[in-house]
Amino acid sequence: MWGGRFSSRPAEIMQAINVSIGVDQRLWRQDLVGSRAHCRMLAKQGIIAQGDADAILGGLDAIQAEIEAGTFPFRDQFEDIHMNVEARLNELIGEPSGRLHTARSRNDQVAVDFRLWVRDACDRSVAQLKALQAALLTRAEQHAGDLMPGFTHLQTAQPVTLGHHLMAYVEMFGRDAGRFADARARMNESPLGAAALAGSPFPIDRQATASDLGFDRPMANSLDAVSDRDFALESLAAASITAGHLSRLAEEIVVWMTPMFGFASLPDDLTTGSSIMPQKRNPDAAELVRAKTGRIMGSLVALSTVMKGLPLAYSKDMQEDKPPVFEAFDALDLALVAMTAMVSALQPNTQRMAQAAGAGFSTATDLADWLVRELNLPFRKAHHVTGAAVKRAEGLGVDLSQLPLEELQKLEPGITEAVYKVLTAEASCQSRQSYGGTAPEQVRARIADWRARL
Amino acid sequence: MWGGRFSSRPAEIMQAINVSIGVDQRLWRQDLVGSRAHCRMLAKQGIIAQGDADAILGGLDAIQAEIEAGTFPFRDQFEDIHMNVEARLNELIGEPSGRLHTARSRNDQVAVDFRLWVRDACDRSVAQLKALQAALLTRAEQHAGDLMPGFTHLQTAQPVTLGHHLMAYVEMFGRDAGRFADARARMNESPLGAAALAGSPFPIDRQATASDLGFDRPMANSLDAVSDRDFALESLAAASITAGHLSRLAEEIVVWMTPMFGFASLPDDLTTGSSIMPQKRNPDAAELVRAKTGRIMGSLVALSTVMKGLPLAYSKDMQEDKPPVFEAFDALDLALVAMTAMVSALQPNTQRMAQAAGAGFSTATDLADWLVRELNLPFRKAHHVTGAAVKRAEGLGVDLSQLPLEELQKLEPGITEAVYKVLTAEASCQSRQSYGGTAPEQVRARIADWRARL
Amino acid sequence: MWGGRFSSRPAEIMQAINVSIGVDQRLWRQDLVGSRAHCRMLAKQGIIAQGDADAILGGLDAIQAEIEAGTFPFRDQFEDIHMNVEARLNELIGEPSGRLHTARSRNDQVAVDFRLWVRDACDRSVAQLKALQAALLTRAEQHAGDLMPGFTHLQTAQPVTLGHHLMAYVEMFGRDAGRFADARARMNESPLGAAALAGSPFPIDRQATASDLGFDRPMANSLDAVSDRDFALESLAAASITAGHLSRLAEEIVVWMTPMFGFASLPDDLTTGSSIMPQKRNPDAAELVRAKTGRIMGSLVALSTVMKGLPLAYSKDMQEDKPPVFEAFDALDLALVAMTAMVSALQPNTQRMAQAAGAGFSTATDLADWLVRELNLPFRKAHHVTGAAVKRAEGLGVDLSQLPLEELQKLEPGITEAVYKVLTAEASCQSRQSYGGTAPEQVRARIADWRARL
Amino acid sequence: MWGGRFSSRPAEIMQAINVSIGVDQRLWRQDLVGSRAHCRMLAKQGIIAQGDADAILGGLDAIQAEIEAGTFPFRDQFEDIHMNVEARLNELIGEPSGRLHTARSRNDQVAVDFRLWVRDACDRSVAQLKALQAALLTRAEQHAGDLMPGFTHLQTAQPVTLGHHLMAYVEMFGRDAGRFADARARMNESPLGAAALAGSPFPIDRQATASDLGFDRPMANSLDAVSDRDFALESLAAASITAGHLSRLAEEIVVWMTPMFGFASLPDDLTTGSSIMPQKRNPDAAELVRAKTGRIMGSLVALSTVMKGLPLAYSKDMQEDKPPVFEAFDALDLALVAMTAMVSALQPNTQRMAQAAGAGFSTATDLADWLVRELNLPFRKAHHVTGAAVKRAEGLGVDLSQLPLEELQKLEPGITEAVYKVLTAEASCQSRQSYGGTAPEQVRARIADWRARL
Repeated sequence: MWGGRFSSRPAEIMQAINVSIGVDQRLWRQDLVGSRAHCRMLAKQGIIAQGDADAILGGLDAIQAEIEAGTFPFRDQFEDIHMNVEARLNELIGEPSGRLHTARSRNDQVAVDFRLWVRDACDRSVAQLKALQAALLTRAEQHAGDLMPGFTHLQTAQPVTLGHHLMAYVEMFGRDAGRFADARARMNESPLGAAALAGSPFPIDRQATASDLGFDRPMANSLDAVSDRDFALESLAAASITAGHLSRLAEEIVVWMTPMFGFASLPDDLTTGSSIMPQKRNPDAAELVRAKTGRIMGSLVALSTVMKGLPLAYSKDMQEDKPPVFEAFDALDLALVAMTAMVSALQPNTQRMAQAAGAGFSTATDLADWLVRELNLPFRKAHHVTGAAVKRAEGLGVDLSQLPLEELQKLEPGITEAVYKVLTAEASCQSRQSYGGTAPEQVRARIADWRARL
Repeated sequence: MWGGRFSSRPAEIMQAINVSIGVDQRLWRQDLVGSRAHCRMLAKQGIIAQGDADAILGGLDAIQAEIEAGTFPFRDQFEDIHMNVEARLNELIGEPSGRLHTARSRNDQVAVDFRLWVRDACDRSVAQLKALQAALLTRAEQHAGDLMPGFTHLQTAQPVTLGHHLMAYVEMFGRDAGRFADARARMNESPLGAAALAGSPFPIDRQATASDLGFDRPMANSLDAVSDRDFALESLAAASITAGHLSRLAEEIVVWMTPMFGFASLPDDLTTGSSIMPQKRNPDAAELVRAKTGRIMGSLVALSTVMKGLPLAYSKDMQEDKPPVFEAFDALDLALVAMTAMVSALQPNTQRMAQAAGAGFSTATDLADWLVRELNLPFRKAHHVTGAAVKRAEGLGVDLSQLPLEELQKLEPGITEAVYKVLTAEASCQSRQSYGGTAPEQVRARIADWRARL
Repeated sequence: MWGGRFSSRPAEIMQAINVSIGVDQRLWRQDLVGSRAHCRMLAKQGIIAQGDADAILGGLDAIQAEIEAGTFPFRDQFEDIHMNVEARLNELIGEPSGRLHTARSRNDQVAVDFRLWVRDACDRSVAQLKALQAALLTRAEQHAGDLMPGFTHLQTAQPVTLGHHLMAYVEMFGRDAGRFADARARMNESPLGAAALAGSPFPIDRQATASDLGFDRPMANSLDAVSDRDFALESLAAASITAGHLSRLAEEIVVWMTPMFGFASLPDDLTTGSSIMPQKRNPDAAELVRAKTGRIMGSLVALSTVMKGLPLAYSKDMQEDKPPVFEAFDALDLALVAMTAMVSALQPNTQRMAQAAGAGFSTATDLADWLVRELNLPFRKAHHVTGAAVKRAEGLGVDLSQLPLEELQKLEPGITEAVYKVLTAEASCQSRQSYGGTAPEQVRARIADWRARL
Repeated sequence: MWGGRFSSRPAEIMQAINVSIGVDQRLWRQDLVGSRAHCRMLAKQGIIAQGDADAILGGLDAIQAEIEAGTFPFRDQFEDIHMNVEARLNELIGEPSGRLHTARSRNDQVAVDFRLWVRDACDRSVAQLKALQAALLTRAEQHAGDLMPGFTHLQTAQPVTLGHHLMAYVEMFGRDAGRFADARARMNESPLGAAALAGSPFPIDRQATASDLGFDRPMANSLDAVSDRDFALESLAAASITAGHLSRLAEEIVVWMTPMFGFASLPDDLTTGSSIMPQKRNPDAAELVRAKTGRIMGSLVALSTVMKGLPLAYSKDMQEDKPPVFEAFDALDLALVAMTAMVSALQPNTQRMAQAAGAGFSTATDLADWLVRELNLPFRKAHHVTGAAVKRAEGLGVDLSQLPLEELQKLEPGITEAVYKVLTAEASCQSRQSYGGTAPEQVRARIADWRARL
């Protein structure tokens, strides 16, 4: 690596801080794929001889076999995955190995490898998000008509259906998948051929390598190609927003499972016990999903900080791009799979949910809306009458639907018996037929829309 | 606001922590636009009388006139922009004002207002990014053939052209604009009609209000509509990545302007002096642009943290969504405009840049490439020979192009006089004709591509 | 400001990005205090005439009077608080004003002002934390013997007392106050006299100005004095950790107030209603306290990012130090005061808490401990027996204390009637007499310790 | 782990997300130390028999030997380090192993282990910071009188000495060490004996185990003991601020080493070469130190996010406390050691630094100060005259010290020949004798102060 010029070997400390093979060996598959594409192009363009190319391709296959068999000697002395592969190639095929690096630099090589990895990670996230959406759709359909309290501020607000609630997450995860897809499309340009930073004097064909690697086109500026990591940042941002959504659903599972709510439980194989409290069924998986948000946001901050204020082109700081990305996607993978398992296995206590849905004056808005609709009161006036009715019911220790008509009429003489039809949780849900509302028909229609889209 | 039920006024501390009018009055325009659309739809659907609608619309116009004239009484007692407008409407038109809030809640109202604001901010950022790209293109064209050192690790690596360097940023800012555009497209759905969280029992037409407000469609789930702020997070992430790019260019301007580089200067009206050192010409604007990254990243972290783990639907935590977004876009606006001014006004010292481009053995790679191309050496061997040549030249205190032929031939007997043709900075740049490379023709071709796109 | 040399006025954009008077006018009091100390020292050292000093001090008093009366003309054209004061001083007293800046630079002036502000903010935070601790101690004493469920994973684990629970926060806030105190002690050195960056050739007395301003000593390195902002970062870190603690208590208040828990309520003046749901009593203040964590963490990230990688000495980036600090402490102030109000006003439903404390097999650990203590079973064996007992009780639909003795004896023949004495929540709490445990005597002893300390 | 009650084994996904042995096996030493202290106390208090204690202690020694020999079977099925040790202990000594967990829970066990680890990390950081300070002191002494330009905004401001510049970092790292020491003192309380969350009914002696483990005292609240991780956050904050300081020095090394500055070089064993540009000597170590800031800040954000809003007591989210802490301290360790090596090996080009120190009108302030001191001009007037002098010198293409006296007298008639004595860089430095100023005597005095302190 240090060629014919360096008079001394790097000291141990330099080795310790500089070596990255422990981290970037995860890029081995991308490194081989990239090298193959480069090698084929070099031969096709006549830059290296076909015989050399064949030798190189054979050597790369042998390396892949060694890595898959677990016999490949990853060595710290060769610093990173690129040098490890190159050194091994030299051991395996000798002189032709030295020709693979023609018209290429580690700078574009690492840019290719890492971009391919991130592209795969985005594709995987999209697939996992779709699986999670599918699980949610199944459960939403089962519970499209089951009542639960809709909370704001964790206070009972209005009745909704469990299906409607779950469908809110289908929307969120749908947008999350869209973000990964957009990031993927934007990053799908090939840095290969940028060489160190200025492009190459060899007659390389960047379009060919781009196509070979599944990229839409070569990147249009060689300095940009080796200097930027915005594709990684955008992917981390998408991961972070997804993790935020997951943390909200995870929080709800934790809350629903506390005995004070008793809204849902998870089977034993998705909970854990306690070393000292044998009665516990802990929602560890949900808590861990919630916690992964920290790691993923931390990764985004880490890489953003690394990149801040770096002059062009490559700086060694950029070697710190991979740990946060690997760790964030490891966390996201696990969180998405675990959440899908929890969604599929969740055992809602629909009876308890329904009971809570009707309590706490949850149909007060329905009373107010009735006053507006039937008596033509201005909304603010209706709101005031309803507030007084709730206060009276609270004082009498009854629910709104149990408040005697004369009590209601004291507050607003025009109220009639008909009002009681809107004061049940079921009627409340049923009435909210506006597009995207919680009425079961609406929920089922939205499920159908998503089934068609997925 | 607290209706007929609350027995006491909120205490002062509650007022202090709860009031948001100081922040959200920036949403006044969006609030009026949203209310108008809602009002028109209510009348069209027969939910309110046309006469009431007319009164309301008149009142809203009067409010707009007051705000624009600076005479509108923003009052803390009414907590936020929505209540301030409503209270004023009531003062102006009396009873009909109470009908505007029919089939609407503050939850969907704030979601609409904020989404409209963020949508505008994204549009503005795209426009500013395009202006910055245009400025860069102009300067890149002027300097498409001017040499400068291409650095890696801030060490001289290979000669590039200043035009090529500037075009790297055109690419970055192009992707940034793409991110804002994608965010804009994804967020362009209307939350209006979600009401508090469950939808509405009134026969509202959500498609109509969506169209009226320029949204592509209504959001498909009412809980999602009032609970999520991922559109704000995505926009902040796009802003943060953009800010990172700006910080890199700002860093380069600071570095280029230090007398040790002397690569560029800025006119007096874009620098500042010192209270104690009258000779200083400080690149304050560049430093401030670089620093804005902190604020913008901090805003992304702030809102991500706020949203973490919130159960559905609306929680008051979400009131803290606006300060980070307003502050981040204020910072980004200023940074983009300031950077555009600096790019346009930058005075490069092309002579000094060109001189530096040729120093420091910057054509060593060209020597190595020549050895590969002309003598068919494997790249790794060529690399070794070149390293020895650099060492020898360093020892003799000369540059590579001044190293006598016999010295070169001692290292590799096949080297001929012809090698000297590739050892100048100019020849090096000229040779890098691969797509996206630094050869002036390539740079000009890429400029032409961008001119066609913008 | 730009002296005799600049040929043109800064352009509007430069003005817009550069001006900071809108933010740093909050430092006016510190700026005057710092200038007075500097002026007195200059006169005492004979660097300026006493007559000039008297004129300056008089002028500074006049400025203070103007600011306090709201008549001081803050002007953008003078950029920041320092230049505004200096310009006004010149208008008020003429020529002597020009001597105040002798042996001083804006760089050390802003360092002094900001450090004084942050020092005050730390003192204020300590005082507010102590007030919060006092409120918690009062409530802890009232509820030292009242039972509630101790949760892990939000699952019932073991009974504790409400007093014990509240005392956990007294400990946290005590450490928080310690962090602010440590930060205050570390920052309490005077930058004044560092001048631009290299110190001064005038015979200044830095010890004198340090004493005058309440600093322990002058800073020992002039470059460090004007370049570093670690005191601000340390304070933000202390604020961020405090905010984290506040967010946990706020979360608990929100959870306790949901009707599903019904553990506590807040009086009307600390809750809010809803525009559409008149029955709501929303814990907005608790949610806002929880959300402030975002802002404060965001501020820490913002300033950390700004400072990353800045070469010495002052860079204009550092002007972005004040917004995050001001905003974070504004948020923290409000959050601490609001939390103190909530703690004082919280109305726990002790009956419901006590009932929940005994449910859910919460004394399972007590059974296991009894088996270890009385029957000398190894803990792991005892744990297994207890698990089987819980399973059996669950199957029979009874609580542990209702499980018949013969059922227990089937699992472990040595169990006797005496076991039932440890199976109530009250007995469980009472038994945990280890130091720092939940037994009421322990809780009261710890309260007494804290009363002695505060 | 899951006792007698769980009817099924956790599914694979649960295993995957829940298992932590891969991470927390780093706590093995702390786990053994903690268990020994607990075991000794149990025996001393008569809670377990001495024979059982002896067996346990023997088993723990055997486990330590196995781990040190690399033969200990770390197994995923036992989830974490605590269960791995316990399971192995059972295999080694049988029944008595089950008694070790008496009066203890994993919750306090993990709190003890992690706190001991973080305490060690803080001690290590203090030691490394002192070594770095020592290296800086040595270099500062060597260069106490060597001139270099003092920059603001990376523009030449005033001459300083290299020793003075290095001493600025001695101050910063001194405060950093203070922060770790304060964090260490605050965290040095023992959680052991808190058990699951409520304390223990066994007659344990928490003071004894605290002393045994080197803690100052037991923690005073059992819920707090198992719930809080502020000690980790405070340590991460200290690490983050330290990393910020390191990033600034690293940035300066990178800048000094660019050929455009040529202020310093590093020996070959602390730089690296390039695969394609054999002439490069890249400051990779400095860049990697600079980049570590990202990882460390990211870790602080990660853990802060994890802890936000968690209700008491233990939640599984807290298992995510260890990765960010381990990774941050790994990064900090490496960065501190690498920086110490670079500081010791740095080869400043003092001649080039001195030359730059005198250029760029760097003594303009000295001229202004002379006008104030000798001619009694108000500072602002002197500043104006100096500005004009700089402008004139710039026009003539000379430096200030070369500007003819008559030119100066045109601007201010009182100027005499004596002024030239203050216009050299050397005189400028020499004159700044204020405490903490850059005069070599001052620098040496401060070095002496630090030598006495360290």
